[in-house]
Amino acid sequence: MPPFNPAIAATFAPPVMEARRWLDGVTFPADRLLINVSQAAPVDPPPEPLRRAIAEAALNLPQAHLYGPVLGNTDLRDAVAEEFSGAYGGQVSAAHVAITQGCNQAFCAAVTTLAGPGDEIILPTPWYFNHKMWLDMQGITTVPLPCGEGMLPDPDQAEALISDRTRAIVLVTPNNPTGAEYPAGLVAAFHDLVQRHGLVLILDETYRDFDSRSGAPHDLLTRPDWDRSLIQLYSFSKAYRLTGHRVGAMITGTDRMAEVEKFLDTVAISTSQLGQIGAVWGMRNLRQWLAGERDEILARRAACIAELGALPGWRLKSAGAYFAWIEHPFEASSAELARRLVRDASVLALPGTMFAPEGDPTGGRHFRIAFANVDAAGIGQLAERLRDFRA
Amino acid sequence: MPPFNPAIAATFAPPVMEARRWLDGVTFPADRLLINVSQAAPVDPPPEPLRRAIAEAALNLPQAHLYGPVLGNTDLRDAVAEEFSGAYGGQVSAAHVAITQGCNQAFCAAVTTLAGPGDEIILPTPWYFNHKMWLDMQGITTVPLPCGEGMLPDPDQAEALISDRTRAIVLVTPNNPTGAEYPAGLVAAFHDLVQRHGLVLILDETYRDFDSRSGAPHDLLTRPDWDRSLIQLYSFSKAYRLTGHRVGAMITGTDRMAEVEKFLDTVAISTSQLGQIGAVWGMRNLRQWLAGERDEILARRAACIAELGALPGWRLKSAGAYFAWIEHPFEASSAELARRLVRDASVLALPGTMFAPEGDPTGGRHFRIAFANVDAAGIGQLAERLRDFRA
Repeated sequence: MPPFNPAIAATFAPPVMEARRWLDGVTFPADRLLINVSQAAPVDPPPEPLRRAIAEAALNLPQAHLYGPVLGNTDLRDAVAEEFSGAYGGQVSAAHVAITQGCNQAFCAAVTTLAGPGDEIILPTPWYFNHKMWLDMQGITTVPLPCGEGMLPDPDQAEALISDRTRAIVLVTPNNPTGAEYPAGLVAAFHDLVQRHGLVLILDETYRDFDSRSGAPHDLLTRPDWDRSLIQLYSFSKAYRLTGHRVGAMITGTDRMAEVEKFLDTVAISTSQLGQIGAVWGMRNLRQWLAGERDEILARRAACIAELGALPGWRLKSAGAYFAWIEHPFEASSAELARRLVRDASVLALPGTMFAPEGDPTGGRHFRIAFANVDAAGIGQLAERLRDFRA
Repeated sequence: MPPFNPAIAATFAPPVMEARRWLDGVTFPADRLLINVSQAAPVDPPPEPLRRAIAEAALNLPQAHLYGPVLGNTDLRDAVAEEFSGAYGGQVSAAHVAITQGCNQAFCAAVTTLAGPGDEIILPTPWYFNHKMWLDMQGITTVPLPCGEGMLPDPDQAEALISDRTRAIVLVTPNNPTGAEYPAGLVAAFHDLVQRHGLVLILDETYRDFDSRSGAPHDLLTRPDWDRSLIQLYSFSKAYRLTGHRVGAMITGTDRMAEVEKFLDTVAISTSQLGQIGAVWGMRNLRQWLAGERDEILARRAACIAELGALPGWRLKSAGAYFAWIEHPFEASSAELARRLVRDASVLALPGTMFAPEGDPTGGRHFRIAFANVDAAGIGQLAERLRDFRA
């Protein structure tokens, strides 16, 4: 056998790719076409003016095809600093901002600056699977922190899990996979906790543009020493429909940024120029459009809460941004039921097992419903199909 | 102190970014403008028809903005398989090809499938610094293999370095930083060596399009079991001037590809769609243009050999693709001389120390000259300035 790194061999395979394979060879009746609530991604391209801005840069701007700075283009770093300073009431400068090839990569960079093999990172469960995959392939121990009521993690429970190998706690809000919006006070309590223990809080806000609350979702960027204890992550993919361009961002202190630069220089060199150009253009010109997008997502969330919340036997645990987290009423595991839902109900949803530690029984009892691409009528149909589904 | 991963803290900072800072505050006289031979990257955008193809996709092709498959778009994987099967006389299929966000990322993915902390990888010196940086931040031990005559590594010397922790040997041909083109027989000898020891050969051919030789530069893809013992890397950045799009490729066996998919799903999700569209378009339409580009690079190489090879006291060790490797005649280290070359000769070149293990005296005696962006007249001027330079 040629050599394989045991850490990556032990890492699970990409769940979204696996779920896609469940569709192979399945034909759906014309009166019951597939409802795909498996992936958290826009299915439409960006608005025409943004596409035109990218096209014009491709045609006429020479540097759109050349390497850019490792940490990102100055105009985009400036725009992020300005937006986050305004939205969170803090003092974020461009030096606190890195642009990455998508927000997954921002997470990988953040973790690599923090922890090595044998170190521990606390991850609330259910977790976002790519977070777990990176920790696994890096030999970092994931310490699961099961969410409770409202799918919220508890800082006291987290504190009990801290050891001398703990380096960071990860929070995702609005959450993937549950959709839970973490209250400002809860995020603050976690930040207090990491500050008390000399750790770092990784705060993934990929879905912040679809938060149902108005105003700043937390006050961390106004706190003293935030730049030593906080790594905040963001994605341009969802807000501006730029998934195919791979542009994300990280906000942290300048000491850590020097380490981030080493990682990005080695793994990325720089982020796609056209993606960065699109992201800047979107931030400058699509604020109004994005507000409309958010309204639509919030309407779909309301439909989800109304329809899925009323399903006999099922229990909707949380819903927000792109996701709902729902408990099913059957004996069988969601891992098995997910395949049968494809065949019997023309519904593709990821089972909770894909977001839970192996052997954790709660994974088998839940589904993630990524409802963002389904309009209110479709959500009604989805609810109907789930109601009629017999395991 | 907040936590830092000691492995990344011990990794050196990006050399190209450091060298750029040497220019800060320096003004160059009008009769002696800067000659920048520090970076191996095109400075001009791709030809207009390629730019137009990207622009049209941005405007009119919805999927140009959406996620693609983790391992790359089917048309690009097919095109790579076809080109490499033809050029190397082997049987490469699309299933053997992964598309990555640049060739650096292909290297990171390759290594991660192979080795973990404490494992060893043999790297000929002088090395490409981003390779060393990835091994360092991953806690993998780099075993240096000093190149000899013609800047070629020796397989017998390599064999003496193999231990039970060795996982792979890395070759870069045409080489960065030396420009050396490794003879087919030498590459074959290294492949024999890894096959004998159950290791893997990582063969980085980023600069293959500018190889001065005609025909296949090696026969590895025609050998039995190549897919278990070879990882071949390629970049679209240089050939089609797509550095700003970040598109690279890897060719290896399907068992390893399953592990590569985990890495790419986590770090990248997928490669920029517009970059992939540009790369396919380039492969299909720019073969003739690329042949002209190669001719121009080969002419510059010839000018380098003539001009730098005749510099009194200096010794040109090797030249090929984008690079020449040259020994200087001074007592001082190239690390110090590089800064003085900026001020006194308006020449920015990377010192050999950036490509050598710490304490290795050969690093201090050499410079890498990345001549690809300097025409024959400029190379003449460069030689003149080096001749007049007094340390």
